[in-house]
Amino acid sequence: MTTRIVELRKGILKKNDELAAGLRASYAAAGVLVLNLVSSPGTGKTAFLERTLTELRRKGSRVAALVGDLETDNDARRLASSGAPVRQINTHGICHLDAEMIGKHIDGWPEVALGGVALGGLDYLFIENVGNLVCPSSYDLGEKIRVALLSVTEGEDKPLKYPTLFNSADAAVITKIDLALPCSFDRDLALRNINEIRPGIRIFETSAKTGAGMDEWIEFLTEQGTGRG
Amino acid sequence: MTTRIVELRKGILKKNDELAAGLRASYAAAGVLVLNLVSSPGTGKTAFLERTLTELRRKGSRVAALVGDLETDNDARRLASSGAPVRQINTHGICHLDAEMIGKHIDGWPEVALGGVALGGLDYLFIENVGNLVCPSSYDLGEKIRVALLSVTEGEDKPLKYPTLFNSADAAVITKIDLALPCSFDRDLALRNINEIRPGIRIFETSAKTGAGMDEWIEFLTEQGTGRG
Repeated sequence: MTTRIVELRKGILKKNDELAAGLRASYAAAGVLVLNLVSSPGTGKTAFLERTLTELRRKGSRVAALVGDLETDNDARRLASSGAPVRQINTHGICHLDAEMIGKHIDGWPEVALGGVALGGLDYLFIENVGNLVCPSSYDLGEKIRVALLSVTEGEDKPLKYPTLFNSADAAVITKIDLALPCSFDRDLALRNINEIRPGIRIFETSAKTGAGMDEWIEFLTEQGTGRG
Repeated sequence: MTTRIVELRKGILKKNDELAAGLRASYAAAGVLVLNLVSSPGTGKTAFLERTLTELRRKGSRVAALVGDLETDNDARRLASSGAPVRQINTHGICHLDAEMIGKHIDGWPEVALGGVALGGLDYLFIENVGNLVCPSSYDLGEKIRVALLSVTEGEDKPLKYPTLFNSADAAVITKIDLALPCSFDRDLALRNINEIRPGIRIFETSAKTGAGMDEWIEFLTEQGTGRG
């Protein structure tokens, strides 16, 4: 049984990698920068993303979001309040998004297509993954930037306990820093643990509530350029 | 591919259910009450369990813990400070515990065996699952009581977004209530959401930091009796 599942898992990941390579080519053709946001449930991905979408739109960027959840479309409704086009992906029990789900939801999304090119009307596409620190790590969605988020309420040891995610991330975002004091958050320890798993990674310390750290994050996104750059 | 994975998954779950039935019989033979604690990473399972072990030991109960993590033995070291026997299960990337892992770690655990009966020296065995609101839901560990934990920092919508866990739980524990105010926790909404998914479930509102709600929780455990009762 174990050998069969390992083999099958390899096959599934190989198929996902092939589909992700196709997505990556589509993103490049559309000139859109794609980010994949991964964290535990309750880290505040949605609040952080809502603020990011709003601020980018204020600067004139064209943005959209795909959001994955096992059930409910709560997050899509919250994100839509930013004014950006948003699509909910219900995974119905699956613990992560995969490249096939992304492809299906990009096809025939007229609000963000341009001149017959899927996503051609966008500068940035954000993918909010299912809340899970384990399973999403193995599934490439063709993104250029994988973002690992960690809230000050979760404990500084999470990068050490979930190394696969942090090791495959291109940027780390610490959320809810407005709660650092009541949570007795040990900032130095958290930064040290992130750096132990992924040395030199860019780390943003943010609060979607107060707006702290958001300027630096938005500047980082602007520096990355769109997928055209 | 999809059909094959569904079939194989069914096979794995069936095998797990058989092993879990065997574990359940062993727990009954040993007269031990077994609980399976499931939550998101960072909910505070370990702090809650550390306090539970300490308080039960103070009342003269014989307790032990198995703790699952992808990597590190941080949690086992923290729990061992309670004085109770603790074993770490490293899953090395697997997103949940399963009955086979539990069986292997119970076999040959002399500190908690009695008269040749595995776990015979215990009143309570706590299993702290891998931090994940999705995958552990499908794996029966033979426990009598499945406990779903949710912290006030995570958002009141988690029961609706992760219904499989809350729907299969026998008790719900809200943790970190000392942070309710800074987190603007909406208690009524959280209770309503839990009850929507699992009507009538016992809910405990706790803080491992201040000790709030712990008396009620310990009383509940005592009422359940040990596995002998």
